[in-house]
Amino acid sequence: MNSIKVAILGFGTVGEGVYRTVETHQEELAAVLGKKVEVVAILIKNKQKDRGIGNEVLVTDDFEEIMHLPQLDVIVEAIVGREPAFTYLQRSIQKGGHVITANKEMFAYHGEELKKLAEAHRVSVGFEATVAGGVPVIQTIQQLLNINRIKKIEGILNGTSNYILSEMRVNGQTFPEALKAAQDKGYAEADPTNDVEGFDAFYKLLILSEIAFGEKPVWESVPREGISSITEEQITQAENLGLRFKLIASIQLDGEKVIGSVRPTLVTESHPLFNIEGVENSVSIEGDIVGRITLQGPGAGMLPTASAVIEDLIHAVLETKLPEAEGTRRRSLHASRDQNRVQNWLIMPQGEVSLHRIPSSSVTEIESGYFLQANEQEISALRRQNRSASIFEVLGDYAVEKTVKVYL
Amino acid sequence: MNSIKVAILGFGTVGEGVYRTVETHQEELAAVLGKKVEVVAILIKNKQKDRGIGNEVLVTDDFEEIMHLPQLDVIVEAIVGREPAFTYLQRSIQKGGHVITANKEMFAYHGEELKKLAEAHRVSVGFEATVAGGVPVIQTIQQLLNINRIKKIEGILNGTSNYILSEMRVNGQTFPEALKAAQDKGYAEADPTNDVEGFDAFYKLLILSEIAFGEKPVWESVPREGISSITEEQITQAENLGLRFKLIASIQLDGEKVIGSVRPTLVTESHPLFNIEGVENSVSIEGDIVGRITLQGPGAGMLPTASAVIEDLIHAVLETKLPEAEGTRRRSLHASRDQNRVQNWLIMPQGEVSLHRIPSSSVTEIESGYFLQANEQEISALRRQNRSASIFEVLGDYAVEKTVKVYL
Repeated sequence: MNSIKVAILGFGTVGEGVYRTVETHQEELAAVLGKKVEVVAILIKNKQKDRGIGNEVLVTDDFEEIMHLPQLDVIVEAIVGREPAFTYLQRSIQKGGHVITANKEMFAYHGEELKKLAEAHRVSVGFEATVAGGVPVIQTIQQLLNINRIKKIEGILNGTSNYILSEMRVNGQTFPEALKAAQDKGYAEADPTNDVEGFDAFYKLLILSEIAFGEKPVWESVPREGISSITEEQITQAENLGLRFKLIASIQLDGEKVIGSVRPTLVTESHPLFNIEGVENSVSIEGDIVGRITLQGPGAGMLPTASAVIEDLIHAVLETKLPEAEGTRRRSLHASRDQNRVQNWLIMPQGEVSLHRIPSSSVTEIESGYFLQANEQEISALRRQNRSASIFEVLGDYAVEKTVKVYL
Repeated sequence: MNSIKVAILGFGTVGEGVYRTVETHQEELAAVLGKKVEVVAILIKNKQKDRGIGNEVLVTDDFEEIMHLPQLDVIVEAIVGREPAFTYLQRSIQKGGHVITANKEMFAYHGEELKKLAEAHRVSVGFEATVAGGVPVIQTIQQLLNINRIKKIEGILNGTSNYILSEMRVNGQTFPEALKAAQDKGYAEADPTNDVEGFDAFYKLLILSEIAFGEKPVWESVPREGISSITEEQITQAENLGLRFKLIASIQLDGEKVIGSVRPTLVTESHPLFNIEGVENSVSIEGDIVGRITLQGPGAGMLPTASAVIEDLIHAVLETKLPEAEGTRRRSLHASRDQNRVQNWLIMPQGEVSLHRIPSSSVTEIESGYFLQANEQEISALRRQNRSASIFEVLGDYAVEKTVKVYL
């Protein structure tokens, strides 16, 4: 029987997960594909280390050796960082192999180039594993896009940050304590910057924006804020108001512009992301026809991510990928502009707060601060006037009703 | 330009939604399909009623007229009940048309026959709209199945029941009051039996079982219980324990058998279905590799359901449907049997309760009853001994920990 030859670049958590899953699921793969799947080569950094890889597999630290294999159908890339991953995938595509990547940073920056190159060489690019691990976010958005115009995407895309915020809330820990707990459990790396300062969520947001809206926001203009400055007092105050802190990555159409942000946000109980706790990921997608669809599941981990990679592999081999819905995407960029969109905010002051220029009818004073309705411009001005105050957006519709009832 | 000719059978909420969406989304459809989509015929019951349907569309109460159209590529069926829908779809397939149905009762009983017939005639059967409206449950399960063995599916599949339970909890209403509210809002029909007694959820469960496990449970053996006997006192008692009532449809492998139930169940805050309120639907799927994935969204309504139908239409025309993962499905039926699976239960007694044969180490007494760990056989015995007590399964892992801490 003819077989599908696969090379895996990188043998960290994801690379190893793919290798093990292919080994243990030979029968399932043969049933779906009508062919055996064989991992023929693995690119590693250190050839000396024993990794329990079968002898029939070429284990090498030299990418050229892999490029010289006589047959190579699919290249799975599970390295970290933009280079050499991008170069390797360009080479792989030029050689005629389907590529599948789990590398969000590389794909956030070079995804479109890779897709164009792949189109020219009539191979496919799979990237389901770059966002939310095993949760089929990419596929669901692409499917919805065939008929829906996507209006907004909101997600909890970084499991490490979500775990830390959950720990702080449930166990009353400080940020350093909860970070330490995350590191002890293997959820956070020794240098946690990428996760807790919002970079990881930001890369994923760029990937989602590209598929949903056909363009990325102007990168420099995207507010990217992490969770390291959230205090346990703020979490307690929020909880007393029925609110929870989440690191929300959000992206939406505002007229012809795509606007996005990654920042700690307060969510009310009515919001679908309220109850996402621990290392879970979740993405909420609003389409003009279907309404709001929310997906939730394990955002990382060896096997969930491997599951996403192998689903991509099956689509690549069977050529069952939906064409990208260019028409729908580009059209959505002509919706009417709404620059003065008013949102809900909570101000947690330290000392006096100046609410200069915000009409008092939009402000509700509460014990621990103020709720208010304002647009982003007004909030920027408020931030400049009140440098020591913390101001958070509030998602969901519980808070305003509640405070209006209670305090007016 | 060549066009795709579509007939719609039935012009209720779903049929009309499909017609309107095709009309308003011509450009998107043409972009994706490379062809125009034309609704050429609509089958209605009463020809006299004005429905705002364009003059170019054949509006008829005679199915034969539709069968005699010279070209017909896709038939969308949105009628209620098993017949004549099943016969119409058989005829449509035999004539070489792709069929798409939103009719859960018909598909629960005749789905496999239709799929086989369609295979023989090399056309496709779309049924995404039969379960959870616009939420892409069917597609996600089929996708996961390519590599995962599905272990369990739990869902809130009936929006009407969920709305009623939410109203009872949030507004302290009785069942009749909340049912009336649902009827006033158009969420429940004049005869609500189908929704509130669990039949609607049961049909959907059969459809999910068929795709996930390749077989249905023995129908007569499936406990199907509705929500009409839940009292507002029980809801309050549950809430005091941090639990919520949900009408849960669940299906899972137990050795080589597929076991399922539709019944009011208590869920803890840690469970992904805890926070699903109002008319929302949600399905939680456990795969052996991917872990637990949960989808949530509008389970009914004109446009969400139309979105699901039109996604099926696109797959049918582009032939991008994944093959059904027979191998994976059938294999899962050989997992090891676990007949004595112990679950968590809450007993809400009326008067004395006899806990005969349940070891006391499994029982925790609380103010309003008992928590206990037991298997289904033991619970059946308990129910026979205590006819006036209500016994509910508890899903999620909060309750037991909590009560052990609080009461022991």
